[in-house]
Amino acid sequence: MADRSSHRAAPVHTHPADVPLLTALAALADPVRLQLVRELAGAAEWSRGCGSFDVPVGKAALSHHFAVLRAAGLVEQRDQGPKRLNRLRREEFDACFPGLLDLVLREEH
Amino acid sequence: MADRSSHRAAPVHTHPADVPLLTALAALADPVRLQLVRELAGAAEWSRGCGSFDVPVGKAALSHHFAVLRAAGLVEQRDQGPKRLNRLRREEFDACFPGLLDLVLREEH
Repeated sequence: MADRSSHRAAPVHTHPADVPLLTALAALADPVRLQLVRELAGAAEWSRGCGSFDVPVGKAALSHHFAVLRAAGLVEQRDQGPKRLNRLRREEFDACFPGLLDLVLREEH
Repeated sequence: MADRSSHRAAPVHTHPADVPLLTALAALADPVRLQLVRELAGAAEWSRGCGSFDVPVGKAALSHHFAVLRAAGLVEQRDQGPKRLNRLRREEFDACFPGLLDLVLREEH
């Protein structure tokens, strides 16, 4: 039985260990991506589909932002039926960039 | 006696306490600025003039990079005769963005 997700290419991931510091910083230096990361940090893993975020950008831009987050080792995605589900790669990103997510997830700024 | 530095406007600074997280991240997410910050971290305060950095950009671009670093609360500058001297605002930046400079100054990435 064909999965509806089979119509699109599986998302490409980069492990945070293979991510340059500049790439990690640039991925987080964007208000939309910061919001996505913060919302994912507050949600259970694999509980949020890409369409579930209330961000002020269109579908194509959102898809680009998720690609940047994957390339920075921040987000892992998997397709489940029509949904693309997300998890924040918190533990492995922390191991490579200690303190960076903690800083970003503080509420002060 | 007129100081030669009086011919140009004094540099404008922003205290790190007034810097949004996105501004701090964006300031560091650039290879030239990362090099400037790393070299300043390894030098005594006020020991490095703006012209003393071996970075692959012209004078105007370098001036822009320093303006970005000042606006992010990362660098303080003062004019001394013909030289504009720099110091990394390490302590006050650390207090506002704990761990970020430590991460950036690690050598691994």
